[in-house]
Amino acid sequence: MRYSLLAGGKRVRPVLCLAACELVGGQEPMAMPSACAVEMIHTMSLMHDDLPCMDNDDLRRGKPTNHKVFGEDVAVLAGDALLAFAFEYIAVATVGVTPARIVRAIGELAKSIGSEGLVAGQVVDINSEGLSDVGLEQLEFIHVHKTAALLEGSVVLGAILGGGSTEEVEKLRNFARYIGLLFQVVDDILDVTKSSQELGKTAGKDLVADKVTYPKLMGIEKSREFAEKLNKDAQDQLSGFDPEKAAPLIALANYIAYRQN
Amino acid sequence: MRYSLLAGGKRVRPVLCLAACELVGGQEPMAMPSACAVEMIHTMSLMHDDLPCMDNDDLRRGKPTNHKVFGEDVAVLAGDALLAFAFEYIAVATVGVTPARIVRAIGELAKSIGSEGLVAGQVVDINSEGLSDVGLEQLEFIHVHKTAALLEGSVVLGAILGGGSTEEVEKLRNFARYIGLLFQVVDDILDVTKSSQELGKTAGKDLVADKVTYPKLMGIEKSREFAEKLNKDAQDQLSGFDPEKAAPLIALANYIAYRQN
Repeated sequence: MRYSLLAGGKRVRPVLCLAACELVGGQEPMAMPSACAVEMIHTMSLMHDDLPCMDNDDLRRGKPTNHKVFGEDVAVLAGDALLAFAFEYIAVATVGVTPARIVRAIGELAKSIGSEGLVAGQVVDINSEGLSDVGLEQLEFIHVHKTAALLEGSVVLGAILGGGSTEEVEKLRNFARYIGLLFQVVDDILDVTKSSQELGKTAGKDLVADKVTYPKLMGIEKSREFAEKLNKDAQDQLSGFDPEKAAPLIALANYIAYRQN
Repeated sequence: MRYSLLAGGKRVRPVLCLAACELVGGQEPMAMPSACAVEMIHTMSLMHDDLPCMDNDDLRRGKPTNHKVFGEDVAVLAGDALLAFAFEYIAVATVGVTPARIVRAIGELAKSIGSEGLVAGQVVDINSEGLSDVGLEQLEFIHVHKTAALLEGSVVLGAILGGGSTEEVEKLRNFARYIGLLFQVVDDILDVTKSSQELGKTAGKDLVADKVTYPKLMGIEKSREFAEKLNKDAQDQLSGFDPEKAAPLIALANYIAYRQN
């Protein structure tokens, strides 16, 4: 659990969670356990995704994947334990938040993982591998679930725990949906334009796995334009908030849009 | 998810959860979502346990195992989704209980799964297979975690959600620990004393897998005496409660102790 969780990574989800909490007027400690929890869930999804029966990946965050070091059985179990611990940590470590908001946050987070979230995206992704007729709609379904759902969960969790109003939570949910898709479009572009060394993970693997991607469906230039539009749409959602407090989320959207790995 | 969850089984954990809720004066609807949740978690642990990288089992609850029908990748993901959905269902569907108690229940349940619960037992079990020097202490660690932890979680959840006092919750926790161990001791005895036909599953499996068991470590007679003692210790924990309300849990303890398959 520690090996994969502490292997580094961009920590985009925890940062989103904390930034959303502060944007709606909350304090960092209210959302810190949830920020850790969303990273645990992201990590466990990568551990299971890397298994031989799924993507069969040897390298993750610049290190051998979990099952390469500890074996497949332990990689499955450590992922399960991380998933459970994420909920435990929110339940026992969140301070300064009403229990009603904690329960709401747990419900939102859980929904972003299961058969209406991350796992839904993974299953459709697996089933569409090698198919030649995957369209833009199905590609968007995959990414909205596989990547955007947990990003959305991270933001919504922060907004709920920070004491946000229903309207604020929904604006931030929309923001998260745009940057969730933005994140994946940029990932697809980087996979075909960067080397493994630059990425810290195997480059060009989407092509090898014959996966459908945005560059494959619309070309690199149109993919870049689409990324620009998503970034703008995302930032538009923040226009009603205090610009100073919105600055970290705007910076994060720009970071996601213009990152090089 | 449906295929494995709805394949049947003894439903011991949900029954324990509901009985504990009613014993402390709660109503069934308070604990019903949690009763479903503990069965989801039990099921997902079986799905992952049956995988080729773990026990590599072909049959479960009289049907082909999940990965045999849907493939390993889907079996891993469906297990993950069931685990997440268990928490979602408690968070969104529990009624008539204060949010503070729901948060406490979620923390207890999560702890019974991860690196201090079910998964801890699985990992030590995997690591001790084929070893000749596994002692009673290590065997007990495995069962206390692999089997008893979730049984304990089920009872404690029911007691918390039903409105039990701290003292009542702790008495029921002890009850659950005894019957958790009792459950496994009886399982071990049945494995060596009954035929496959009587059990409805492969008998003598532990011997073939060279697994350490109670009969192997202390003989059948001493194992039977140990089971008797555990059943008595468990029932002693219920002496302070209304006998009429305690009757279902006492019946369940006797069912576990004297079952023939």
